[in-house]
Amino acid sequence: MRIGDLPTPAAVVDLARLTANTSGMRERAARLGVRLRPHVKTHKCVEIARLQHGGRIGPITVSTLAEARAFASEGFADVTYAVPLAPERIVEVARLVRAGVQLGVLVDHPDAVAAIESVASVERLRLGVWVKVDSGYHRSGVDPEGSSGLEMAARIAASAHLDLAGVLTHAGHAYHCVGREEVAVVARQERDVITVFADRLRAAGIVVPEVSLGSTPTACAADDLVGVTEMRPGNYAFYDAFQVAIGSCRLADCALSVVATVIGCFPDAGRLVVDAGALALSKDPGATHLDPGCGFGRVCELDGRGLDGLRVASLSQEHGVVMATPAARSARFPIGTKLRIVPNHSCLSAACFDRYRVADGDRVVAEWWPARGW
Amino acid sequence: MRIGDLPTPAAVVDLARLTANTSGMRERAARLGVRLRPHVKTHKCVEIARLQHGGRIGPITVSTLAEARAFASEGFADVTYAVPLAPERIVEVARLVRAGVQLGVLVDHPDAVAAIESVASVERLRLGVWVKVDSGYHRSGVDPEGSSGLEMAARIAASAHLDLAGVLTHAGHAYHCVGREEVAVVARQERDVITVFADRLRAAGIVVPEVSLGSTPTACAADDLVGVTEMRPGNYAFYDAFQVAIGSCRLADCALSVVATVIGCFPDAGRLVVDAGALALSKDPGATHLDPGCGFGRVCELDGRGLDGLRVASLSQEHGVVMATPAARSARFPIGTKLRIVPNHSCLSAACFDRYRVADGDRVVAEWWPARGW
Repeated sequence: MRIGDLPTPAAVVDLARLTANTSGMRERAARLGVRLRPHVKTHKCVEIARLQHGGRIGPITVSTLAEARAFASEGFADVTYAVPLAPERIVEVARLVRAGVQLGVLVDHPDAVAAIESVASVERLRLGVWVKVDSGYHRSGVDPEGSSGLEMAARIAASAHLDLAGVLTHAGHAYHCVGREEVAVVARQERDVITVFADRLRAAGIVVPEVSLGSTPTACAADDLVGVTEMRPGNYAFYDAFQVAIGSCRLADCALSVVATVIGCFPDAGRLVVDAGALALSKDPGATHLDPGCGFGRVCELDGRGLDGLRVASLSQEHGVVMATPAARSARFPIGTKLRIVPNHSCLSAACFDRYRVADGDRVVAEWWPARGW
Repeated sequence: MRIGDLPTPAAVVDLARLTANTSGMRERAARLGVRLRPHVKTHKCVEIARLQHGGRIGPITVSTLAEARAFASEGFADVTYAVPLAPERIVEVARLVRAGVQLGVLVDHPDAVAAIESVASVERLRLGVWVKVDSGYHRSGVDPEGSSGLEMAARIAASAHLDLAGVLTHAGHAYHCVGREEVAVVARQERDVITVFADRLRAAGIVVPEVSLGSTPTACAADDLVGVTEMRPGNYAFYDAFQVAIGSCRLADCALSVVATVIGCFPDAGRLVVDAGALALSKDPGATHLDPGCGFGRVCELDGRGLDGLRVASLSQEHGVVMATPAARSARFPIGTKLRIVPNHSCLSAACFDRYRVADGDRVVAEWWPARGW
C-alpha cells in the first residue's frame, strides 16, 4: 500500500527520518557522555523505543503507568515514571516492582514521600525515588535553593524502604525560547541547577547516584553536560512544527505527519477543508510566541515537501480549515487531493491515533500500535 | 465504587444531568415542531444516543464512518454523515447502505456529487445526499445566494442514482457570540438562510424533503423554527464550560467532568498540579473571546459544586497546572485531593477516554464504551 491509499486521517511515521532522529540523539548523548533515557510519551510504542536504543532494550522514561506496564511486558525493565504520582496509584507501582521492573518514581512534596514510604513498608518492597527539582519551568519540582528538597532527599536516603535514585529536572521553559541560542542558555541553566543541587545534597552527606535532566530543545542545544549522568528527551523521535520553530530541527526532520484529504474547496475565498481536525492534529496552538498566525501545523505535499502559503487556520472536531495566502491561491488542490500535515505538537497528535502507519518513502511497510490510557 | 475511588484521570458522566439534558432537548424539539437528529460525535456512545431518543432508537448525525458503523450495528439505521466525505470513502458508505442503513451524505462541491454518483452507479445503489449550505460559519457549505448549490440540488434530484435528502446547515459561528441574545440572532439567521434556500430550490421545481439545521447554542436559543423539519444539536448531552460561558446552560448542567487528583501542591505560589493534562482535557482554549483568562476548564469539588478562584492555567501532556487567586490561596488542597474539572469542550475531552464512568450521585453504576477512530 502507498501512503496515498490510506484511509484518512492517518498518522504516518517516516522510517528514514525516525531512524535518523533516533541515531542522531544517541550519538549526541554519547558525545556528551551521558546515558540516554528517552521519554517514550511522545510515541508510546515499543518499536520506536527499541530504535531509540539502536535496536536493543534500554532505559526509558514514561508519563503514565499504562506505558510502564506496556513497555515492561516487552522487556523494558528500567523505567522512570516522570510525573508525580497520585498516592492511591503507589500500589500499582509496587505491583510492577514486584514483577521485576526497576521503576523509579519522582517526588516534590514530603506528603508524597510519606505515602510512598508507607506503601513500600506495607508491601515489603524497596522503591527507587527521584527528587524532582524546578529548574525554572515552575510546573513541578522543589525549589533548588529551599530546604524541602534536601530534607526529602535525606529522608529517602535514610529510609529502610526507599532508595534515592537521584535528582531530576526538566527545563520545559525551553519551549518559551525564541531560538537555539536562547535554548542553549536554558540548557546551561538546567544543567547548573541540577548539578548544584546534587552537590548540595552530597555536601550534606547524601549519596546521589544519578543526575538526570532533559527536554528535546535543551538536549539539542546542550554543549556540555559535566556533572550530569543521563538525559531524557522524548519529542526528538518525531520532532514537530513547534521544534522547527524554536530551532531544534528542520521541517525535513519531522517524522510524524497526518495524511489528510481535501474535502472542501473554496478557491474564491482561498480556503480548503481537510479531514484532519482537532481529533487528528490536537488543538495545540504551536509556537505562537514566535508567530501568532502559525496555525495548527505545517502543510506539506504528499511526498513530504513543505507547501508555502498554506496555513491550517482553524480546527473543529473533524474539519481542518486551510487558508491560502493570496500568492498561493492560484495553486489548485481539488477535492480528493492528499496532503501531509506536520502537527504543532507530535506527542498530542500521535495520541489521537490507535496505530501508526510506518512509511518507507511512499510505501506503508508496517503498522505499530502504541500504548493508550493511564 | 465511588467516583473518589476511580483511578485518575477518569471521564465521569453524571447520569442525572445527562438525563435532564437529553429530556430537555427532546422537549424543546417537540415544542419547536421539529425532528431531533442528535449529533452523536460528542459522546459516540449508543447508550447516550438511546437516552437522547427517550430510551429508543432514532435518527442520528455522525462525524465519522466509524461512528456510523458502530451505531448501525446497534440498530441506529437512520444516519446523516455530516462531514463532507473524502471521495475514496464513498465505497464504505455504499457498503453501509447495502447493509440496510439509510445513510445520508452531504456535499458542497460539484466534484463530490460526481464522485458519489459514479460510485452509486457502479454499485447499483441509490444514495441519499444533502446539500450543505453555509449560513455564516464559513467553514463548509455552498453560498446560499450563489448558483452552485441550486445546480447541485438539480443534478442530484435528476440523477438515477441519487436522492436529494434535503438541505442542511450548521451555524458554528454561534460559538463566537457573547451571550444568549446574540446567539438568538444567529439562530434566526441559520433558520432564515436554510429556509430561504429551500424555497429557492422549490421555486426551481426541486422537491426538498428535509430542511435541517442545528448546533447546541442555536438549538437552545431558537424560538421559532417554521420551515425547518429537523435539528441536529450534539454537545447538549454533556454541555461544557464553553456552553456555560455563552449562556446555553449553567455549570450545574454539565454532565461530563474529568476526575483528577492533586499531585503537586505549591501554596506559596498559589499553584496546584493535577493529573489531568492535555490528554484528558484537550487543549481547547475555551471561550477566550469572553474571558481571555478562562483557562482549560472549570474546577469543581468532587461533589460537583463549582470552586471559585481556581483556574486551570496551563496544560502539558499529563500535568494540569491550577492557579489560585489570592483570595482562594487559603483553601487547602493537599496531595491526593480529588477534584472534578468540567472541560472547555466536552467533545474533545470525551474523545481522550476509552470509556466513561457513569455516576449516579457519587456511585459509579456503569461503564460505557464509545466508538473511536475513523
